[in-house]
Amino acid sequence: MSARPPVAWDERSDEHLRDACGVVGIFGPPEAANLAYLGLHALQHRGQESAGIATSDGTRLHHHRGEGLVTDVFSAPLLGRLPGPYAIGHVRYSTAGGSGLQNAQPITARYGGGMVAVAHNGNLTNAAMLRRRLEAEGSIFQGTTDTEVIVHLFARSRASTPEGRLMDALRQIEGAWSLTVLTEDKVIGVRDPLGVRPLVLGRLAGGHVLASETCALPLLDATFEREVEPGEMVVIDAGGVTSRRYLPETPRRACVFEHVYFARPDSTVFGRSVYGVRRALGQRLAQEAPASADVVIPVPDSGLAAAIGFAEASGIPYGMGLVRSHYVGRTFIEPTQAIRHFGVKLKLAPVEEVIAGRRVVVLDDSLVRGTTSRKIINMLRGAGAREVHLRISSPPITHPCFYGIDTPSRAELVAAQYGVEEIRAMLGCESLAFLSEAGLLEAARDSAGGFCDACFTGRYPIPLTDALET
Amino acid sequence: MSARPPVAWDERSDEHLRDACGVVGIFGPPEAANLAYLGLHALQHRGQESAGIATSDGTRLHHHRGEGLVTDVFSAPLLGRLPGPYAIGHVRYSTAGGSGLQNAQPITARYGGGMVAVAHNGNLTNAAMLRRRLEAEGSIFQGTTDTEVIVHLFARSRASTPEGRLMDALRQIEGAWSLTVLTEDKVIGVRDPLGVRPLVLGRLAGGHVLASETCALPLLDATFEREVEPGEMVVIDAGGVTSRRYLPETPRRACVFEHVYFARPDSTVFGRSVYGVRRALGQRLAQEAPASADVVIPVPDSGLAAAIGFAEASGIPYGMGLVRSHYVGRTFIEPTQAIRHFGVKLKLAPVEEVIAGRRVVVLDDSLVRGTTSRKIINMLRGAGAREVHLRISSPPITHPCFYGIDTPSRAELVAAQYGVEEIRAMLGCESLAFLSEAGLLEAARDSAGGFCDACFTGRYPIPLTDALET
Amino acid sequence: MSARPPVAWDERSDEHLRDACGVVGIFGPPEAANLAYLGLHALQHRGQESAGIATSDGTRLHHHRGEGLVTDVFSAPLLGRLPGPYAIGHVRYSTAGGSGLQNAQPITARYGGGMVAVAHNGNLTNAAMLRRRLEAEGSIFQGTTDTEVIVHLFARSRASTPEGRLMDALRQIEGAWSLTVLTEDKVIGVRDPLGVRPLVLGRLAGGHVLASETCALPLLDATFEREVEPGEMVVIDAGGVTSRRYLPETPRRACVFEHVYFARPDSTVFGRSVYGVRRALGQRLAQEAPASADVVIPVPDSGLAAAIGFAEASGIPYGMGLVRSHYVGRTFIEPTQAIRHFGVKLKLAPVEEVIAGRRVVVLDDSLVRGTTSRKIINMLRGAGAREVHLRISSPPITHPCFYGIDTPSRAELVAAQYGVEEIRAMLGCESLAFLSEAGLLEAARDSAGGFCDACFTGRYPIPLTDALET
Amino acid sequence: MSARPPVAWDERSDEHLRDACGVVGIFGPPEAANLAYLGLHALQHRGQESAGIATSDGTRLHHHRGEGLVTDVFSAPLLGRLPGPYAIGHVRYSTAGGSGLQNAQPITARYGGGMVAVAHNGNLTNAAMLRRRLEAEGSIFQGTTDTEVIVHLFARSRASTPEGRLMDALRQIEGAWSLTVLTEDKVIGVRDPLGVRPLVLGRLAGGHVLASETCALPLLDATFEREVEPGEMVVIDAGGVTSRRYLPETPRRACVFEHVYFARPDSTVFGRSVYGVRRALGQRLAQEAPASADVVIPVPDSGLAAAIGFAEASGIPYGMGLVRSHYVGRTFIEPTQAIRHFGVKLKLAPVEEVIAGRRVVVLDDSLVRGTTSRKIINMLRGAGAREVHLRISSPPITHPCFYGIDTPSRAELVAAQYGVEEIRAMLGCESLAFLSEAGLLEAARDSAGGFCDACFTGRYPIPLTDALET
Repeated sequence: MSARPPVAWDERSDEHLRDACGVVGIFGPPEAANLAYLGLHALQHRGQESAGIATSDGTRLHHHRGEGLVTDVFSAPLLGRLPGPYAIGHVRYSTAGGSGLQNAQPITARYGGGMVAVAHNGNLTNAAMLRRRLEAEGSIFQGTTDTEVIVHLFARSRASTPEGRLMDALRQIEGAWSLTVLTEDKVIGVRDPLGVRPLVLGRLAGGHVLASETCALPLLDATFEREVEPGEMVVIDAGGVTSRRYLPETPRRACVFEHVYFARPDSTVFGRSVYGVRRALGQRLAQEAPASADVVIPVPDSGLAAAIGFAEASGIPYGMGLVRSHYVGRTFIEPTQAIRHFGVKLKLAPVEEVIAGRRVVVLDDSLVRGTTSRKIINMLRGAGAREVHLRISSPPITHPCFYGIDTPSRAELVAAQYGVEEIRAMLGCESLAFLSEAGLLEAARDSAGGFCDACFTGRYPIPLTDALET
Repeated sequence: MSARPPVAWDERSDEHLRDACGVVGIFGPPEAANLAYLGLHALQHRGQESAGIATSDGTRLHHHRGEGLVTDVFSAPLLGRLPGPYAIGHVRYSTAGGSGLQNAQPITARYGGGMVAVAHNGNLTNAAMLRRRLEAEGSIFQGTTDTEVIVHLFARSRASTPEGRLMDALRQIEGAWSLTVLTEDKVIGVRDPLGVRPLVLGRLAGGHVLASETCALPLLDATFEREVEPGEMVVIDAGGVTSRRYLPETPRRACVFEHVYFARPDSTVFGRSVYGVRRALGQRLAQEAPASADVVIPVPDSGLAAAIGFAEASGIPYGMGLVRSHYVGRTFIEPTQAIRHFGVKLKLAPVEEVIAGRRVVVLDDSLVRGTTSRKIINMLRGAGAREVHLRISSPPITHPCFYGIDTPSRAELVAAQYGVEEIRAMLGCESLAFLSEAGLLEAARDSAGGFCDACFTGRYPIPLTDALET
Repeated sequence: MSARPPVAWDERSDEHLRDACGVVGIFGPPEAANLAYLGLHALQHRGQESAGIATSDGTRLHHHRGEGLVTDVFSAPLLGRLPGPYAIGHVRYSTAGGSGLQNAQPITARYGGGMVAVAHNGNLTNAAMLRRRLEAEGSIFQGTTDTEVIVHLFARSRASTPEGRLMDALRQIEGAWSLTVLTEDKVIGVRDPLGVRPLVLGRLAGGHVLASETCALPLLDATFEREVEPGEMVVIDAGGVTSRRYLPETPRRACVFEHVYFARPDSTVFGRSVYGVRRALGQRLAQEAPASADVVIPVPDSGLAAAIGFAEASGIPYGMGLVRSHYVGRTFIEPTQAIRHFGVKLKLAPVEEVIAGRRVVVLDDSLVRGTTSRKIINMLRGAGAREVHLRISSPPITHPCFYGIDTPSRAELVAAQYGVEEIRAMLGCESLAFLSEAGLLEAARDSAGGFCDACFTGRYPIPLTDALET
Repeated sequence: MSARPPVAWDERSDEHLRDACGVVGIFGPPEAANLAYLGLHALQHRGQESAGIATSDGTRLHHHRGEGLVTDVFSAPLLGRLPGPYAIGHVRYSTAGGSGLQNAQPITARYGGGMVAVAHNGNLTNAAMLRRRLEAEGSIFQGTTDTEVIVHLFARSRASTPEGRLMDALRQIEGAWSLTVLTEDKVIGVRDPLGVRPLVLGRLAGGHVLASETCALPLLDATFEREVEPGEMVVIDAGGVTSRRYLPETPRRACVFEHVYFARPDSTVFGRSVYGVRRALGQRLAQEAPASADVVIPVPDSGLAAAIGFAEASGIPYGMGLVRSHYVGRTFIEPTQAIRHFGVKLKLAPVEEVIAGRRVVVLDDSLVRGTTSRKIINMLRGAGAREVHLRISSPPITHPCFYGIDTPSRAELVAAQYGVEEIRAMLGCESLAFLSEAGLLEAARDSAGGFCDACFTGRYPIPLTDALET
């Protein structure tokens, strides 16, 4: 037996951008924790690092948080210890605040008026500044997440109601946020004034539900009612659903990357079907950057809809040239004997029947570091591809996100460092093309307003207060 | 909080037939256990109930078995306790012998000549008869799996070599088997005379590999050499690979269901690409049973290739009308509040964009009980499908398998009880069609011989000794 | 098989008073967390519900807390994630604040001046009043433990150093406290002005140690230096050990119950050997309440030293009439078939050889509810005892403790409800006697000052601010 | 943080001889598994490495085995999966066969006549010879324990009843055995002809119990009936208890070490109270080897009764100079910073009050390697002992045991290599004395016959068939 210990392989070396979070809120049914659990399961793609649920039985709050997937963090006995008809929940990939259990959400606290819990999808751009001010006044913090700042502002408010306290807090913060908030007898949903992150309201048997994406609704037998509007606070309590606008209207700046990669294809986000937008991205890309090829294949599953669109618009046949393993977990024991492209092989396998001897167009949704793409291209050549044409259904990512997405530094963003032809040479494919910014915005367009596409353009719609100070 | 405890939902209520097992054998590399682990991971679709590895360090055997997925059963420390350059491994869905750890494989034993381990994919049809004979002679058994019978016959042989003992044993058993066998210094691969189950031989750095399917080879950086032939015993030891035929040649009767459902689409099985065969099944089905429709969608992932073939042959656009969750595990906590079609919803979600207002052709690989299909059809209607046309890319399953596949009783096989029109009415779709037997055999045809399709026809190519006695 | 599920038996039904906590502090050695772990293990008898360690690497703090014994909560990898040469630790039985992970200690926080962690043995008597004041000013709380109040007062202080902040906090709190406090580069030990709870300072290779009891020192190869004085703050940093008095001197009121039951017999507490004091209690009791008997036996292990003293003073032979199981855990599966005195039998077994046909004096340290004593007396009779004379080496417990001991309500304290003769009749023994208050104080006497014996007398030396309000 | 990883400390470095096993059998009550569990808990001192229970529901057997303590191996759900009114159980320290789950007991098997389970305390001296013979005839073995040999002989018998098969098997084996055997409807207890290992029969509500020691009876509310006689087979079934002698009577050779160390002090073994015998050993030792000293202290808990006896006979006061931790587990994380005598300190702590400035007599039950004794003597000196006089209440161990006790090789037995004075010098104490063989046998004497004391004398009463061959 070898002296070298087996090594763990971590799927996170995968190269997609990561969404920070998903949130849910449940009001009404007798076992709200179980429905929150299901809702979080449906939002699992928005965060796999930790999960948490807080409930209220009408008198006091209960919560449980843990690291891992929703099904790992919660067992039937643990859900049983979260009684009550009101609940909020959270899944998280990683945050501004770093990982670790003390940063898991929902954040809960006891304050002068009772108890409160907050779950946050997004990122504050003035959290550090607010934190320094709060610390100077004697506040203490458990972790480093900016959500804790919101809870402190809430507790320090002189307003007499939870809604009033929350509005006080919201008027002091900057950035992107979709929040679900729980008090003893209310579930509140809030979206930031620009509407960067999604949040929807649904109706379920005996109550209401809030969720980051519509894909959580069918699993709860809930029906879609409407989006929570940018700058809106939706309060659900025994009196029903009431709405108030806590900040004046501004042009919408929804995150276009929700359409490109984050959201589930069966969700409707910002009023448009995600699948439909992605298919349109692929169609548009076929027009902008055609390829002479024998087959169009997706990188599963993120490139599926765009590949179907590309195949339709180009007339080139569609094929499943790569299959995705159903059994990929977070860590894996790697043999000490070197296996080429080990990580990618665990997740993807080439189908020679589709690839061998063919000119292949490969569709992926975005390009971050380029390392995985290079391995995929090598894998396709190893399976006999005659030519490989990589098509990316979004523009080059050149700037970091400050509004709730975990982006690598600019030094690691390959498109921030190199031109398209340089990248093509590094990846080793016959051709490489990205969708244009105009093509992206046109395909994603809806009636409700504009998009934030700062990661592609550097045009940041919200001031970067903390970032500018450092 | 509700008094009723949350219920666990079990994915096995899913309605596909289940393969009994997958096997691997590794000869040569210093850490054979790690490569066996990877090989089993690649064969995980062939069995998710238990996993096991036995190794030899040249002097003695070591083994570990457990219930669950390969990545659950093995950790780096556990693999570290399986030293040596020779290994066999096994994943198992369920067996003739019932579940439980004592039936997990490989089966290991100490016998007069040393130690031996056996991993078995298939099923013996005279195991009960042999077992009674062995018990009458004083043999004791740990579990109820028929593999233990093989080990006893091996131990009782008067032959002087492990190969001789194994041949003695193989000449007494009836049924279907692909075996990997481990002794102190040999790895042996055996396939039954009709070649019902697949088994291939590959070459890897510093040695050789045996595996149920070719899809295990790339993950080990191994190259395909050839199939183990029906009735062949391949012995790998320090002297290299030697072959012997232990029973005379008979016409091949390979399991056609490997092509229909079991094998991974990127595998080559019985000399044909599984993806290629499935696509051809879909093409053929489009000719045999066309439909007037707007979109062709697969039940993911088992219906993918057939749906692509159907779309190609019919000219109807292909779409991803159902998305499959990446996070489905074995059990799930179900809320006491009834959720319609809970199990199916955890795994599949409809994409309204593709379905709403459309006439939809849904492709699935086979129909067992029909319960899941009915839920899927309901789900598609709920998402707005105007018409649903179900197409099954194999004939009606009318007979149980006795050769290593876990089939429900005839009473539970919907096609053994009802005609096609009755089933269509029960499922609630506009039309239903199965592929013909002739269409199946033609699409799967290869140069090496015939198929066993007893599950569709009741024509059993191997005597059912035990079954006829009861 | 029975339909009734097996029942868990909980050792906590045992009837001793429980100490709230044990604390340690480590300054200097490269792996302070490991030494804190050992120190907590030596103090495990002071709290078995949760354990926690916080460390500092000089720049930032790290911590881990969990429910269970020290060896359950910490593994080698977890200790590895607590780097640095400075550490504090805590074991906890239960607190004023209720159980649950959010009340586990050390409490850690980020505040305007950096990071701080606090471990607390004792109880504040004005915590509720302070908490209300803090909440009114906007402070938020994670749990319900009074230690969090100390951290808030620390964070809100305007003092410029951690020591200054701590002194500000200490001057606002009332009650009993022995604290260890950790900042980025200091370990601080504090004892309340009356010195209710013990705390000692020791020297170890490359540094210093603080611990609730001296029994933690030998396991760390540390030597005893001195007690931390009542009202003293000991600051250990790179400059060495410095001492300051933060409140004026008052007469000492050390908890006499540390000698009666809490402390380990090999500890020196308040300047006296615990074993020596207990033996003296037994000797004194033999004089105050002699018995005509054949053998003196202890209730192991709490009555051991007193029984030896009683045997010496009375001349009656000493014997091990009860043996204690080495394998008692926290929970145990109880058969549904009723077993008489199940709980006591799991822990204690009678030795007939010592008991049968004899007149037996049984020594126990204290009497709380009396339920276990009754079972022991029954067990002794079952083993053939002719007479049973129960001797308690402390006075009747008649009042609850407000200074860090978990006492049942007065309604559950048998001696608060009944006279000695009534209790004797309830227990079913031939005679029962308690040590007198005078006898207790005389046997425990040392040169440093007086004792708090409020649980025996109701004379509370510290105002019960919160209790008087309710 | 240190680069060196924390080390695990293993309590097994402790130096007592280890008993191989404890066994129980339960016949009658509805939930026999739960009573077997309790019985094994009471016998936990006889084996801490693995535990197992097999039950019968009247038709078939069920079993569960695992590594660890009884309370670790079994949970309420696991016990729930062991239905039926008949059960046997086993705890094991280590065996001739090596450790590992495949050697855990009870051994279960299916054979021609049904199912059988066997639990074995003892060791066969001709197991290797029998195994070779069985293997030559084609038998296969799962592990290396000699109990499996008994099961094979049982299965190969031509007798028509389980009792007949068992007698056939018992007449072929040599060595020491106390067995409990389970069939579909019987529980059988067997003791070897010389009666080396103990086994008793008791009566419980609704049935009967077999157990290695009487200490298991009170926890089951069972009453002692009698010892199973040497050479007797006790069969318990629906017809009641029947007895047969399967081999002619021979002089008894009970293991004297059961009295010296193995058995619990509250047990009656071979007709004598274990506590009573140990106290007599101490009294006798005080006469044989007096010491001028101030205090007699035991090494807890094994030396307790002998120390009380020594103190009584010598008139020297008894004291608890060493206290034993209640929280010692199997492994412990050791700091990389060297701690002197770490292992001993985790388990034992000196009480300075008893030791400092005194001449101390320390009583231990036996001396194996001497390493722990040297650490204890050092510890006592560190606590201020003026003189240390070590007294061992048994003779020097000079020979290995072949009858079920795990002894180190002669090279590791300090008394097989060195004289008493040499050992004294190595241990560093003022005087060292062992009890004489005559003193031991006289103190342990009972009316039933002689003892095996081969470990002290090398006089082996049973042929060492296997050992003589190698």
